[in-house]
Amino acid sequence: MLHARCKADVLKTVIEAISTLVDEAKFNVTTDGISIKAVDPAHVAMVEVTLRKSAFEEFKAEGMELGIDMDKFKDVIKLAANDDELDLNYDTENHCLFVKIGNLTRRMSLVDSSGMADPKVPKLDLPGHVTIASGEIEKGIKAAEAVSDHVALIASPQAFELLAEGDTDTVHLKLDKSHLPALDVKENVKSLFSLDYFSNMVRSAKGSQGIHLNIGNDYPVKIDFDIAGGNGHVTYLLAPRIES
Amino acid sequence: MLHARCKADVLKTVIEAISTLVDEAKFNVTTDGISIKAVDPAHVAMVEVTLRKSAFEEFKAEGMELGIDMDKFKDVIKLAANDDELDLNYDTENHCLFVKIGNLTRRMSLVDSSGMADPKVPKLDLPGHVTIASGEIEKGIKAAEAVSDHVALIASPQAFELLAEGDTDTVHLKLDKSHLPALDVKENVKSLFSLDYFSNMVRSAKGSQGIHLNIGNDYPVKIDFDIAGGNGHVTYLLAPRIES
Amino acid sequence: MLHARCKADVLKTVIEAISTLVDEAKFNVTTDGISIKAVDPAHVAMVEVTLRKSAFEEFKAEGMELGIDMDKFKDVIKLAANDDELDLNYDTENHCLFVKIGNLTRRMSLVDSSGMADPKVPKLDLPGHVTIASGEIEKGIKAAEAVSDHVALIASPQAFELLAEGDTDTVHLKLDKSHLPALDVKENVKSLFSLDYFSNMVRSAKGSQGIHLNIGNDYPVKIDFDIAGGNGHVTYLLAPRIES
Repeated sequence: MLHARCKADVLKTVIEAISTLVDEAKFNVTTDGISIKAVDPAHVAMVEVTLRKSAFEEFKAEGMELGIDMDKFKDVIKLAANDDELDLNYDTENHCLFVKIGNLTRRMSLVDSSGMADPKVPKLDLPGHVTIASGEIEKGIKAAEAVSDHVALIASPQAFELLAEGDTDTVHLKLDKSHLPALDVKENVKSLFSLDYFSNMVRSAKGSQGIHLNIGNDYPVKIDFDIAGGNGHVTYLLAPRIES
Repeated sequence: MLHARCKADVLKTVIEAISTLVDEAKFNVTTDGISIKAVDPAHVAMVEVTLRKSAFEEFKAEGMELGIDMDKFKDVIKLAANDDELDLNYDTENHCLFVKIGNLTRRMSLVDSSGMADPKVPKLDLPGHVTIASGEIEKGIKAAEAVSDHVALIASPQAFELLAEGDTDTVHLKLDKSHLPALDVKENVKSLFSLDYFSNMVRSAKGSQGIHLNIGNDYPVKIDFDIAGGNGHVTYLLAPRIES
Repeated sequence: MLHARCKADVLKTVIEAISTLVDEAKFNVTTDGISIKAVDPAHVAMVEVTLRKSAFEEFKAEGMELGIDMDKFKDVIKLAANDDELDLNYDTENHCLFVKIGNLTRRMSLVDSSGMADPKVPKLDLPGHVTIASGEIEKGIKAAEAVSDHVALIASPQAFELLAEGDTDTVHLKLDKSHLPALDVKENVKSLFSLDYFSNMVRSAKGSQGIHLNIGNDYPVKIDFDIAGGNGHVTYLLAPRIES
């Protein structure tokens, strides 16, 4: 059972975060809220989204799973303006979701979620912790995309750096500790990542207060940020690339 | 003879309304204004536009016909901002139209209108009358386009409904009498239409005060609305589809 | 040696003006500023841009040449907002340019400028002088593009005219002396030009106070306008087309 009501932009943010990695996902509904875990088809990245009951205006649910087609759900949510409220109602009999936006009711079929296993989130020991404004890192990513298809994240006790090196051109974003909301790094660390994956993750954080980057040495990066005014959270894990 | 001056957006609305159905149309000019009747090539829909003398700042004309290429006329009008005034002058000798926008004069050739007969507008007895805000129905159409290529218009004494049914998904817009500017329906009526045609017609009513829908049972729909601040009127007829 | 700092939109305007004609250009740096001269591959048009030291917030330079790829430079500058300041630093050792925008540093390789000779600017005696608002002439060009691929510039002591004639349609922009910031023409002159070249030149003047057109009889046109708040200048020469 699910009956929920929330602002459209809450769900927009959730879908944005997941759809950068997968086309379909299993929404785990409990009495406390909704959570989603998914791994991309290439097994390079993982996303975990939690949306607490408090992110909703109304939320009544029993434990259940919803298999959702991301593109279809995105199109449905787009029918609402960001500030519009929408209702989600699960119809047990027909196994479909009713989305109500004002006077409009959209019946949406669900996808079979029986084959979608929840991935196990690995425990990672990441010594570098950086908090950065999303606009700042987006600027670096935009510049990097012109010169390379991978990017190094570098952290030291003094600064955070993003470095993209092409054959002839380079992009270097360097933010000193004084320019960062938070920087907690004991030792110098550096890891290389696919720019494509990394930029999609950062872009889905657009509008969030700040992005936390947890960096190791030739090790996965953990990227996480709050959504829904702190009533939800997105965590990405991204596997490193081997430096050639 | 034709010498007319009007705001650009008056003509923009007229062209928008006609060009959803035909590429070329015959403009019937009289001393009282301009009227256009056209049937689409598939004979599924008809449009009738009247623009009274009062829609113009200046209007001097004798009875005549102008064969107009819609795309070309649209491009010419686009050169003016919505609030710009433009002059239309017919040049009898060269059989062309001079459009003047500020210091710019555009000479536009006309198409041969001798083969364009005025279609006869059928008399229809349509028992359901609904007035609806254009934004409200547009929202329903946008949602419907994701699930089907046809749409049912349903009216009862209590409510107006738009229903689109796909194989697995449906869209249902329901507006109670209290949510509608006007609803005058004696008996339950329902007809099915091509969504493509219907959406184009509704979209050309963007900016109008309200759209009148005249609905029957498995019968054509008549869609009409005012343009040019009430100094003009657009009427569409759209043939129904057979429900399978 | 070059160390310069300026608002991003100053360089955007320069690149816009040059890139309408060439993909790569040689920037001649002196202690007084930067100048660029280039001829398009078809030898139909020439551009000369000068940017005085005063256009920069800071400017320290010795005589040198920089071979610049226009598209790449455009992309780099785009990373900055119009009001952002950016730093240009030439790295002699690696023969590359460092562009600094806030915390972001972009290392940009240069192209070989040894084969790029400065074209000689011909002396032209052009009897017609017109100053026109860029928006006014842009409107004429936009209209002209729908009917022809060439355009005649016509000047008389009383008016400036732009005339484009297609097979059936024509566009005629006529501005009387009273509608022009300046008109100084002794005799009637008329020359025909490629609309493609002419429109690109006029469009790169967007935002300038006024465009000066210097017109002769079946003779090249000289188009020039100020940039960077009067601290820079762009001059185009465009060869005429023979009227058929």
